[in-house]
Amino acid sequence: MVGVLSDLTLTAGGLRAACFPLFRMTDMTNLSRYFPILDWGRTYDRTALSNDLIAAVIVTIMLIPQSLAYALLAGLPPEAGIYASIAPIILYAIFGTSRALAVGPVAVVSLLTASAIGQVAEQGTAGYAVAALTLAFLSGGFLVLLGLLRLGFLANFLSHPVISGFITASGILIATSQLKHILGVSAHGHTLPVMLGSIVEHLDQVNWTTVIIGLTATGFLFWVRKGLKPLMKSLGASPLLADVTTKAGPVAAVVATTVAVWLFGLDSAGVKIVGDVPQSLPPLTMPGLSPDLVQALLIPAILISVIGFVESVSVAQTLAAKKRQRINPDQELIGLGAANIGAAFTGGYPVTGGFSRSVVNYDAGAETPAAGAYTAVGLAIAAMALTPLVYYLPNATLAATIIVAVLSLVDFSILKKTWRYSKSDFTAVAATILLTLGMGVEIGVASGVILSVLLHLFKTSRPHVAEVGLVPGTQHFRNVNRHSVETDPEVLTLRVDESLYFINARFLEEMVQERVADGCAIKHVILMFSAVNEVDFSALESLEAINLRLKEMGVGLHLSEVKGPVMDRLRQSHLLDELNGQIFLSQFDAWRALQKQ
Amino acid sequence: MVGVLSDLTLTAGGLRAACFPLFRMTDMTNLSRYFPILDWGRTYDRTALSNDLIAAVIVTIMLIPQSLAYALLAGLPPEAGIYASIAPIILYAIFGTSRALAVGPVAVVSLLTASAIGQVAEQGTAGYAVAALTLAFLSGGFLVLLGLLRLGFLANFLSHPVISGFITASGILIATSQLKHILGVSAHGHTLPVMLGSIVEHLDQVNWTTVIIGLTATGFLFWVRKGLKPLMKSLGASPLLADVTTKAGPVAAVVATTVAVWLFGLDSAGVKIVGDVPQSLPPLTMPGLSPDLVQALLIPAILISVIGFVESVSVAQTLAAKKRQRINPDQELIGLGAANIGAAFTGGYPVTGGFSRSVVNYDAGAETPAAGAYTAVGLAIAAMALTPLVYYLPNATLAATIIVAVLSLVDFSILKKTWRYSKSDFTAVAATILLTLGMGVEIGVASGVILSVLLHLFKTSRPHVAEVGLVPGTQHFRNVNRHSVETDPEVLTLRVDESLYFINARFLEEMVQERVADGCAIKHVILMFSAVNEVDFSALESLEAINLRLKEMGVGLHLSEVKGPVMDRLRQSHLLDELNGQIFLSQFDAWRALQKQ
Repeated sequence: MVGVLSDLTLTAGGLRAACFPLFRMTDMTNLSRYFPILDWGRTYDRTALSNDLIAAVIVTIMLIPQSLAYALLAGLPPEAGIYASIAPIILYAIFGTSRALAVGPVAVVSLLTASAIGQVAEQGTAGYAVAALTLAFLSGGFLVLLGLLRLGFLANFLSHPVISGFITASGILIATSQLKHILGVSAHGHTLPVMLGSIVEHLDQVNWTTVIIGLTATGFLFWVRKGLKPLMKSLGASPLLADVTTKAGPVAAVVATTVAVWLFGLDSAGVKIVGDVPQSLPPLTMPGLSPDLVQALLIPAILISVIGFVESVSVAQTLAAKKRQRINPDQELIGLGAANIGAAFTGGYPVTGGFSRSVVNYDAGAETPAAGAYTAVGLAIAAMALTPLVYYLPNATLAATIIVAVLSLVDFSILKKTWRYSKSDFTAVAATILLTLGMGVEIGVASGVILSVLLHLFKTSRPHVAEVGLVPGTQHFRNVNRHSVETDPEVLTLRVDESLYFINARFLEEMVQERVADGCAIKHVILMFSAVNEVDFSALESLEAINLRLKEMGVGLHLSEVKGPVMDRLRQSHLLDELNGQIFLSQFDAWRALQKQ
Repeated sequence: MVGVLSDLTLTAGGLRAACFPLFRMTDMTNLSRYFPILDWGRTYDRTALSNDLIAAVIVTIMLIPQSLAYALLAGLPPEAGIYASIAPIILYAIFGTSRALAVGPVAVVSLLTASAIGQVAEQGTAGYAVAALTLAFLSGGFLVLLGLLRLGFLANFLSHPVISGFITASGILIATSQLKHILGVSAHGHTLPVMLGSIVEHLDQVNWTTVIIGLTATGFLFWVRKGLKPLMKSLGASPLLADVTTKAGPVAAVVATTVAVWLFGLDSAGVKIVGDVPQSLPPLTMPGLSPDLVQALLIPAILISVIGFVESVSVAQTLAAKKRQRINPDQELIGLGAANIGAAFTGGYPVTGGFSRSVVNYDAGAETPAAGAYTAVGLAIAAMALTPLVYYLPNATLAATIIVAVLSLVDFSILKKTWRYSKSDFTAVAATILLTLGMGVEIGVASGVILSVLLHLFKTSRPHVAEVGLVPGTQHFRNVNRHSVETDPEVLTLRVDESLYFINARFLEEMVQERVADGCAIKHVILMFSAVNEVDFSALESLEAINLRLKEMGVGLHLSEVKGPVMDRLRQSHLLDELNGQIFLSQFDAWRALQKQ
């Protein structure tokens, strides 16, 4: 033992041998904390440049149809999707801390945008586009505010099950919302029953040419996703090539259907097409800031911020961990906030770090946020030069790319997993899915959050309390119901497996009163505090009440194994002065002192 | 040791020697669980009868002016206060579990009633009285529902500091609301600034005769409360006599001022008097149940139910503990619910178990809920026979009794106590007081509840995490920052002092990633779970993510001292199959196995 110990470091103060991982926030100067670009920019070299450029080309090609499609989903003109990918990417490159995250329009945020601004303006009007800018501005402002106040933890209110349920339900809502483009009908609604009802009502308008284009594109894209990649791999293609080809599937569908519409003049047969898209760099725009508009969009903006932030941070954290890098969630808030404010002033709409685009960026070898900036340049060139090429692009093709992309988000396995693991998590998922589908995204996600908090509080409101006794021959105390242990009819020891706070303070009072009323020989009650991490003021008052009541009954109240921070608190109160008993360092000390005094 | 042990009971299954306390819910049959009257009624005898009768006489005398005054506070005709004390008391005697609780109108609930129905009807109209019945009905229905669903724990959302702050602020609001009666002016408002502003606006209406009556009554009642009791005690009166005399002070003030008004015809000098009160038993009334009214009063009704329930249960529990009795909070919900429904159909308004009337009842020797029933009979006689006697009773006297009663509720010491004990509890109190005074009772108490929940969640969102090392020569592990301990640069042990759930799941991921990034020699991470009482699905997924990331870095993840219930859960998951490490029963086992493998 001594031989082994001599090899170890004996620390006081938690000092560890210094070592230098790839990327450490703590090394940064104060300025580069707020401008991470100063950190990675210093060491930018030719290799990083070429890797970033290659990644940018791949991502740009993938983003063109995706941006158009998500703009359609948000109910905005197609160019809004491209504009929303340019300034935001550059701003995130300056302020963000993730090296691989690609910021821009994403499916869920586009849906939330459509749902929010659909309530204040008619789709296709100028007011609708202005509301989108306002939403981006408010959402960006809120993110920056949270970042400056270091309140990133608020995003934690969205539990994993609630997010999973919400994403699954959103995927279904998004796919359903695109059905009208595949069918060529004009339907409306932001909940599943309304959308389906509206589609059924308008079934007489179905345009069969559109249906053929839409179904062909959808089928093709599903095949690309499910069949092409394995095929290419079996033909010996490199994984990267297989992956890039798969991601380029939407581009192929776009080109093929655009050419078909142009060749056969299908637009005159009623196929709705993208039409004129202005050839221009992102314009300078002003979000509307009238009090009415701001009031109407504030809550949706907060919701979009939080959901976008959670999605973005999950992606960024996953990618950073792969290279043992770190991201700074509070700085991420500022990065995403800046990106959204940028979108508000350049004709865009709310953006966030997207999963698929970031993974493609990462897989394509992006080394620094500069890759994002090059992507922005690529998209700017596309916005200026390539928009005439999408004139004949049918909306049905864009709808098909959305449907295929979002159906991969739909994953009901979370229901099975949570059912097996914890019924309360299951309840939160199921409620989130049902309410999102039935009452819309905002009510759905808000109910999920509130329900998770209530269920958690409910669980801690009736904590596990074990009556413990001494395991013979040891100094250990275990549950009398699970183990054969020594007890003393005059000494009741209760181990409370929960922090004590207002939600369970009254329970504590009732529980002690009940247990003492059950055994009238009891002379001493010991509360064993080994798992009590906090005692708030309500619980303190309950302990005082318990102490008084036990005193009136002639029963002593003792505490054992109180943690340091809890003890520090209790010393600030009167409880210790008035305690009709003692505080023992260990339960064994308490037992030795009190049994058969 | 062995000699001592032979005296002890060796239990398996937590069996204790049976013994028979005075009153045990578990002995009851199913029927008497819902009708506790069947329990105590069986053993009712002559002694109990005479004790209960004496208590009833004392309480009746005290209740007559109090009931009139609280009706005035609620903005209702005076008889409503008496009616609200009759049927509810009898119904509580049948369904309630406390033996000393006296149910009827109380100050805080009267204020809440005035605030709630003031928003839907004009004071003095028939609609106002009907709204009061509706409020009582909804509140009763909600309480019964909670009771049947056994959801009494929901009342715990009101933390002690929030209740204290709310009661203090309510006391100030109530006293301020009575100033207009003392001054003889007509003012309005439900928040402190509005009430004070309105009084200042109407200062030109001040009736000086009313002021003299009001100030004299207030001064007299303060003297009775502060000076008379010590005086009588020093003159050798028994504590009970001193107490009863003190409580009868309002009766004396009522009699004296009534006689004065009648003798000198002060009502014609502008002194507002109670006037005609119908001589009748409580009438049969119907609460209004139009959808609009129900919708407008539902939230206030829920609030009143919860606040009334909390007040009532605290009183009942305190009194029950003195006799080593128990109350059943879920059955209390049903008892109070029945009382409120009774009030709705007999011309009353929302009621609850009051502190002062219950304490008087208890001190006067009440043994069973029958004492309440006799009080009801006394009040019924008063309602039929004595109401003409209060014709000349000035409103200013009633206002004085209210002011003196509620100012004893005002207690700012909670601010000092919580400031010293915990800043987050202080924040909740201060916010509750300020918002109740400034924005009204409903917003005040709702904000207090929401703020306490948020502050609690915030505290658990960044739990205390200690890096621990071995205390040399023992098997104990302590914080490296507080103790001189042995550590191994290759083994990082983190003790997480909090249950792991969605609010801190992401923190856990970041924290582990940060600590591992800090020490690149680390080969093993041990999470010590001794204070982890729960791992929810979000935290499970975070543990899985941590495990994967550490695996990619070539670092092992181990768990030690996992509690039984937590381990049972984890076995339902994939974590244990995929864990890149082991589960150790004790931290010492983990240490021995992993150091310098």
